[in-house]
Amino acid sequence: MFRKEIKVLDCTIRDGGLMNNWQFSDEFVKSVYNALVDAGIDYMEIGYKSSEGAFSRKEVGCWKFCDEKDLRRIVGENKSSLKLSAMADIGRIEPDDIVPASESLLDMIRVAAYVNQMDKAIWLAEHCMDKGYEVSINLMAVSNVMERDIDEALEDVAKSKVPIFYLVDSFGSMYCEQIEILVNKYKKYLPDRTIGVHMHNNMQLAFSNTVTGIIHQCNMLDATILGMGRGAGNCPLELLMSFLKNPKYKLRPILKVIQDSMLDMQKDIEWGYHIPYLITGALNQHPRSALKWMSGEQKLDFVTFFNQMNDKFDL
Amino acid sequence: MFRKEIKVLDCTIRDGGLMNNWQFSDEFVKSVYNALVDAGIDYMEIGYKSSEGAFSRKEVGCWKFCDEKDLRRIVGENKSSLKLSAMADIGRIEPDDIVPASESLLDMIRVAAYVNQMDKAIWLAEHCMDKGYEVSINLMAVSNVMERDIDEALEDVAKSKVPIFYLVDSFGSMYCEQIEILVNKYKKYLPDRTIGVHMHNNMQLAFSNTVTGIIHQCNMLDATILGMGRGAGNCPLELLMSFLKNPKYKLRPILKVIQDSMLDMQKDIEWGYHIPYLITGALNQHPRSALKWMSGEQKLDFVTFFNQMNDKFDL
Repeated sequence: MFRKEIKVLDCTIRDGGLMNNWQFSDEFVKSVYNALVDAGIDYMEIGYKSSEGAFSRKEVGCWKFCDEKDLRRIVGENKSSLKLSAMADIGRIEPDDIVPASESLLDMIRVAAYVNQMDKAIWLAEHCMDKGYEVSINLMAVSNVMERDIDEALEDVAKSKVPIFYLVDSFGSMYCEQIEILVNKYKKYLPDRTIGVHMHNNMQLAFSNTVTGIIHQCNMLDATILGMGRGAGNCPLELLMSFLKNPKYKLRPILKVIQDSMLDMQKDIEWGYHIPYLITGALNQHPRSALKWMSGEQKLDFVTFFNQMNDKFDL
Repeated sequence: MFRKEIKVLDCTIRDGGLMNNWQFSDEFVKSVYNALVDAGIDYMEIGYKSSEGAFSRKEVGCWKFCDEKDLRRIVGENKSSLKLSAMADIGRIEPDDIVPASESLLDMIRVAAYVNQMDKAIWLAEHCMDKGYEVSINLMAVSNVMERDIDEALEDVAKSKVPIFYLVDSFGSMYCEQIEILVNKYKKYLPDRTIGVHMHNNMQLAFSNTVTGIIHQCNMLDATILGMGRGAGNCPLELLMSFLKNPKYKLRPILKVIQDSMLDMQKDIEWGYHIPYLITGALNQHPRSALKWMSGEQKLDFVTFFNQMNDKFDL
């Protein structure tokens, strides 16, 4: 599967950090960075860009902020072809705290927003473009948005300068047909923009939904090593690479970082397919109730979790 | 997703037994049987039908043979709506050893065959039909068969009485587009037969490929509880049920047997997504080399396995 427009963005640290409050050792972040450089991956999303005070440093690690000094400690001057990205949540970053791209090791800022935040997201994304960054807008939780609201968001993005717009399956609740319909909608409104896909694995569909996106001409593809990410995790990078077969990507460095670093990480952080995540995904619900359940002592009592969710919804 | 023609076949014991030579306790097999009955599943494939002497009873458990006395110990007279199936491998069963269906607890015999065994498979399947069984033919390893040979096999099946024909992704190597093309080919040659799908999870595509089969009108769907099966395993039954949403299926008994019995089984048998299975799947190779690697002490040295496979093939 070779299409030169395709770019792969690894968000192992950013999305995986949702599971451990970004409390990664420098050694681990460096090993991921080096593997991605060696593998020829296009972008590494190394964390969130947040303003000081938006979160307590006692609770979250430095990748919730992505200060330049922390970036430099890992990547030096980043003399590589791997571009660095950070995600910005609406309301968690003061626009004036974003330094010009010429003074930053970051190449890209991705603005994550719910549909009711779209005006703010467009403003912030254009603000970042004016400062010299590549940008995208990632519309979260689209599986819970009514069609008219999606259309309106797309109309607004179409009027903006934002070059990349993402289909995000935040709840891991979508099947291939829903992906196909939404991608085609996004393309209809935004024929001259790049469409990205960011999938979650609650129903073991993160990779296959990414493939569906590829088939329908999505060219920005999010993945994480061994699928590490919130809850059920993301599209596994190693699967995506084995599908793409693009000669610029090398699988061996990713396999090496898996065996050297990710398997140990798996002992500390329990991401991946588990029944509670399937249940929230199938119900098209935020994974927070499943995450909470999985952190409790009764986590393997799936029937009780199912009954509780079933009282609220209907499966 | 409601379509009354759809039937679900659970092959947890049959395919899962490939990982432990069918050395299951009666208690475990009963718990699976009871869960499937309570869940309203249509078929349970409880093992292989083999002739005495085809395998050593010192090496394999009783579900490699499916003697009536063993079946009866688990299911009694099987006063339930759950039908029982056994798989027959060409050359491992003497046709005369198959008793008439009226004397058996088995309702169905599925004949597994490679493409070069298709004549024998049709003969055996029709022999079983004559004895009163429901039958299918499961053409294995189709991802390694040349197109002309597939066409010829389908022409032969079209001339037979065999009512069900299966698309089997033995190596877990197929993507949605390949599923779509093959299903449509099967349907073109066999417009009046039922097409089944049996998928493996080497690339986390077993469930999504099953969904693709459903979209293209496949109506016999194989799955296993928690995906237990050879190597990377199969389409997880609990995912398939949450997709189908057919009111006759109940998810709760399956969740209960997962937490009561399958989680313990997972400690003894290591099935599921692992890098060596991804590698053989992506290379469209039989999983045997990955299974062997996963049984060795160096099993987590993925790079060495990748290098060995890469010397033979090209990934």
